[in-house]
Amino acid sequence: MTNRILSGMRPTGRLQLGNYVGALKNWVHLQDEYDCFFMIADWHALTSNYADPGDMRRNMRAVLLDWLASGIDPERSTIFVQSLVKEHAELNLLLGMFTPLAWLERCPTYKDQITQLANKEIETHGFLGYPVLMAADIILYRANFVPVGEDQLPHLEIAREIARRVNFFHGGPIETGTNLPTRPIFPEPEPLLSAIPRLAGLDGRKMSKSYDNAIYLDDTAETVQTKARSMMTDPARVRRTDPGNPDICPVFSYHKLFSSPEIVAEVDRDCRTAAIGCIDCKKLLANSLNTLLDPMRERRAVLENDTPRLTEILEAGNARAREEAERTMGVLRERLSLPASARDAVNAS
Amino acid sequence: MTNRILSGMRPTGRLQLGNYVGALKNWVHLQDEYDCFFMIADWHALTSNYADPGDMRRNMRAVLLDWLASGIDPERSTIFVQSLVKEHAELNLLLGMFTPLAWLERCPTYKDQITQLANKEIETHGFLGYPVLMAADIILYRANFVPVGEDQLPHLEIAREIARRVNFFHGGPIETGTNLPTRPIFPEPEPLLSAIPRLAGLDGRKMSKSYDNAIYLDDTAETVQTKARSMMTDPARVRRTDPGNPDICPVFSYHKLFSSPEIVAEVDRDCRTAAIGCIDCKKLLANSLNTLLDPMRERRAVLENDTPRLTEILEAGNARAREEAERTMGVLRERLSLPASARDAVNAS
Repeated sequence: MTNRILSGMRPTGRLQLGNYVGALKNWVHLQDEYDCFFMIADWHALTSNYADPGDMRRNMRAVLLDWLASGIDPERSTIFVQSLVKEHAELNLLLGMFTPLAWLERCPTYKDQITQLANKEIETHGFLGYPVLMAADIILYRANFVPVGEDQLPHLEIAREIARRVNFFHGGPIETGTNLPTRPIFPEPEPLLSAIPRLAGLDGRKMSKSYDNAIYLDDTAETVQTKARSMMTDPARVRRTDPGNPDICPVFSYHKLFSSPEIVAEVDRDCRTAAIGCIDCKKLLANSLNTLLDPMRERRAVLENDTPRLTEILEAGNARAREEAERTMGVLRERLSLPASARDAVNAS
Repeated sequence: MTNRILSGMRPTGRLQLGNYVGALKNWVHLQDEYDCFFMIADWHALTSNYADPGDMRRNMRAVLLDWLASGIDPERSTIFVQSLVKEHAELNLLLGMFTPLAWLERCPTYKDQITQLANKEIETHGFLGYPVLMAADIILYRANFVPVGEDQLPHLEIAREIARRVNFFHGGPIETGTNLPTRPIFPEPEPLLSAIPRLAGLDGRKMSKSYDNAIYLDDTAETVQTKARSMMTDPARVRRTDPGNPDICPVFSYHKLFSSPEIVAEVDRDCRTAAIGCIDCKKLLANSLNTLLDPMRERRAVLENDTPRLTEILEAGNARAREEAERTMGVLRERLSLPASARDAVNAS
């Protein structure tokens, strides 16, 4: 049986190159080997933005288009919206009953975030429970693997502990005619660790919406050229004839991620000898980026005004997700002596 | 408009006289004045019994029968199962995002329970969030009043604070064609305080399943007689000719709650003068109890083997509850920029 993967993104805006190299590029390849579930995580986005969620629905459409443009294939993968599969909330509630507060309080990211997002009054029951909702997202589909970076490992470890705890109390043979494995109820999800390259902003600072220093997947070829031209370079290279140091140049860090090995080698060599100037180097980078983005633009052009097709993709994805979620919940409800229906609640058998 | 009430009970077993005088009796009267929603709170029961929920489904049928036998009228009131209205879990998740941990941690019942139920490993995310789920139960139906005893007041106060906080951030005019009031989103639920009589067990101790010292609403007339006969009395009254002290006699405390004023006065007088013996006094009590329970037995006899009717009652109640829940959630989802459907998620308007 093909192993299953669950991953997701928050719909907080258009995606940029950092999201591509950090996640999407990997997702596209994972589709060849795994049964992939990709979730638009609107409830997670709300956890930190509950006071002002912005236009999350517009962001959802943008994220969906970015995914499809990048090569996420709705024929092979299940693309769905978290809040439209209500079982996420139901499982979150149930798993929360099994989750000791200490597991959540000791989570290293929790205190970090509390400090970083102090202005957002984030010290809430929902925010503390972020790893519980994440565990529900994964366990709901009985996912075997979750692609994560180092920083997400503690959350995945909590998901594994929660799965283990429910299995411990309620694993066992199944009486009714489901065809899930008899024991345990859920697999313990494994991390699929990948080194996630951190892409700096065009100005060398952290990539951030508020700095306006990112290239978006839906930028036009011209915009990419303009943005590449504006990039910060090695500040010590003042004149065209000064040799540069690619190791500290943001443009070169982009080359390493987006240009062919030949271009990378050429730029590395010619920058140090001043054989190439920054303007030409940036033109080469813009070409590399547009080589990556051109096929995305083609796919996007086909879909971006085809709202019926986008609706169809999400409807099919949500339906598939719900079906799998219901399989899990059916077993769990029975183990917890929760009724499946009014008939069931009065023991009409 | 008729004011709405939400109340509920956990399906942890057959109900006894303590549940009747503590809640059910009041509910039956509330039906004359309010639009009542009565909830079988299976998710709440699971919060403390997640490790071993027992046969909750069997308990549900018992509770439903006890309610109907006591005079809860499905034609006037909405009787439903919490876990069969999934919106409770969805609203719980959303409200949790708005609920500062400090509100929950400072709740006086929380630390009490942690100590009392230490053997149940109750210090979990779900247990800390009990008041959030309770707030969701109430707010989901935009209930105006909640019948509570003193001990539940802090929980209701948290529900009021949560409603206020969501109203603060997201109250405002509604653009789409709903007919809910425009502002705020939810009413702040008010307590309907009633002095809840504490009924002691037959042996004078706290009434408890493990002490086997309760009279159940479904006990037969003979069982009630036997149990009344076995009740503890004033221990100082050793011989039939000794005068007794009704003020410290458990039998007399039952008389005060279940016998007519005439009987209460008669027993009070004749016990002190030894004009009546304990055996006769207990016979009088058994009569009073059976006078209360006989009409319940009649209603129970009609329903207890009519599983289709019980199913129908819960199906209708669940459907009515869902309809009201969806009205609330429709408004809240829109305010939080959450999609109502796949069409909505891609902005197909």
